[in-house]
Amino acid sequence: MKVGIVGGTGEIGEGMALRLSQRHEVFIGSRERDKAQTCSLSCRTLLGSLELPCRVQGCDNQEAVDSAEIVILAVPFPHAANTISTLKGFGGKIVVSPINPIQRAEYFFHAPPPEGSAGLMVKRLLPADARLCVAFNNIAANRWRDLEKPLRYSVAVCGDDPTAKERVMELAGSVPELEAFDAGPLAVSPMVESLTPLLLNIGKYSRMKDVGVRFL
Amino acid sequence: MKVGIVGGTGEIGEGMALRLSQRHEVFIGSRERDKAQTCSLSCRTLLGSLELPCRVQGCDNQEAVDSAEIVILAVPFPHAANTISTLKGFGGKIVVSPINPIQRAEYFFHAPPPEGSAGLMVKRLLPADARLCVAFNNIAANRWRDLEKPLRYSVAVCGDDPTAKERVMELAGSVPELEAFDAGPLAVSPMVESLTPLLLNIGKYSRMKDVGVRFL
Repeated sequence: MKVGIVGGTGEIGEGMALRLSQRHEVFIGSRERDKAQTCSLSCRTLLGSLELPCRVQGCDNQEAVDSAEIVILAVPFPHAANTISTLKGFGGKIVVSPINPIQRAEYFFHAPPPEGSAGLMVKRLLPADARLCVAFNNIAANRWRDLEKPLRYSVAVCGDDPTAKERVMELAGSVPELEAFDAGPLAVSPMVESLTPLLLNIGKYSRMKDVGVRFL
Repeated sequence: MKVGIVGGTGEIGEGMALRLSQRHEVFIGSRERDKAQTCSLSCRTLLGSLELPCRVQGCDNQEAVDSAEIVILAVPFPHAANTISTLKGFGGKIVVSPINPIQRAEYFFHAPPPEGSAGLMVKRLLPADARLCVAFNNIAANRWRDLEKPLRYSVAVCGDDPTAKERVMELAGSVPELEAFDAGPLAVSPMVESLTPLLLNIGKYSRMKDVGVRFL
């Protein structure tokens, strides 16, 4: 598949590029094309040194959208709405929101926008024919990047377009050990997103790093 | 430990009694003492036939509270407030809420009371010196009851009393394969509870039964 990662030079975007470019053609997008190209080069260098295949290129965010069949919005929640507003061409595309609106007091908590979740907000901001799924919310950036360890985790995928959801589950399932689960319609996204602050709390209070989840 | 299960003849209570009575002294409570005694007898018979140890007795809900060090409120959310209002003697006790306020439309969702979670509502209804933890929310009744399979799951425990939380984690950890995790203060309970409808949705849309969770 051709996968575009908007915000692909951020921690989570970079980690996803490292995993996905071994099996797919990845377009790392950034507001700054230079940064994306540097990131793409280090991705290629790292995977090359491990003798792993790699198909990746750096570009600006708009090119990442335009080049891809599946566009992953790997942007922090506070920048999500603004980033989407600067881009076009989402019509007909499969779009993935791994975005978690989280705040931290003594503990971490889900702090969704008025729509009820980041996913539902993104839905409102995209053209009506964009095919949005919420997925990849519950895996820490460090785990994506730690290529020495398989991603032995589960991915909950929700969305209202069945064939888009199937493609996203296929994408998730293409990463060794990663298991995709259909979690239902986009309306389930508040529950998918609020699992992430729970994992962060378990990490904090049980003194673990980068806690992930398996459904079984 | 001495463990009282209020609502111990319900599906989840019965399953918990089957697992916990192998290692602890369990008081199955019910509004109807006869029902609790019948349930206690079948628990003893089943575990006896498997040559497993069993310490269990049936009593009314009030006796279950009075006899126990740890009281588990194994009641469905719609009956929780009413059940608590008929009981006394919670002061100083460790109380566990595994209660999930869930509603079902096309999909399952967390439908908490105004307090924000069942756990926070229970907190308000109990005397101030009751030592409440939220735990055991994410394991299906059928899994508790299926003694042929180990409970290879995780339990998120949250609460504001550190020593109570420690005891509840110890209780959870005493069940073979079950792993307890400190998830933080009681304020985290909305996230612990809303994991359950997510698991139900994954079960429904991924066609799986009694989906559980591991944190790792």
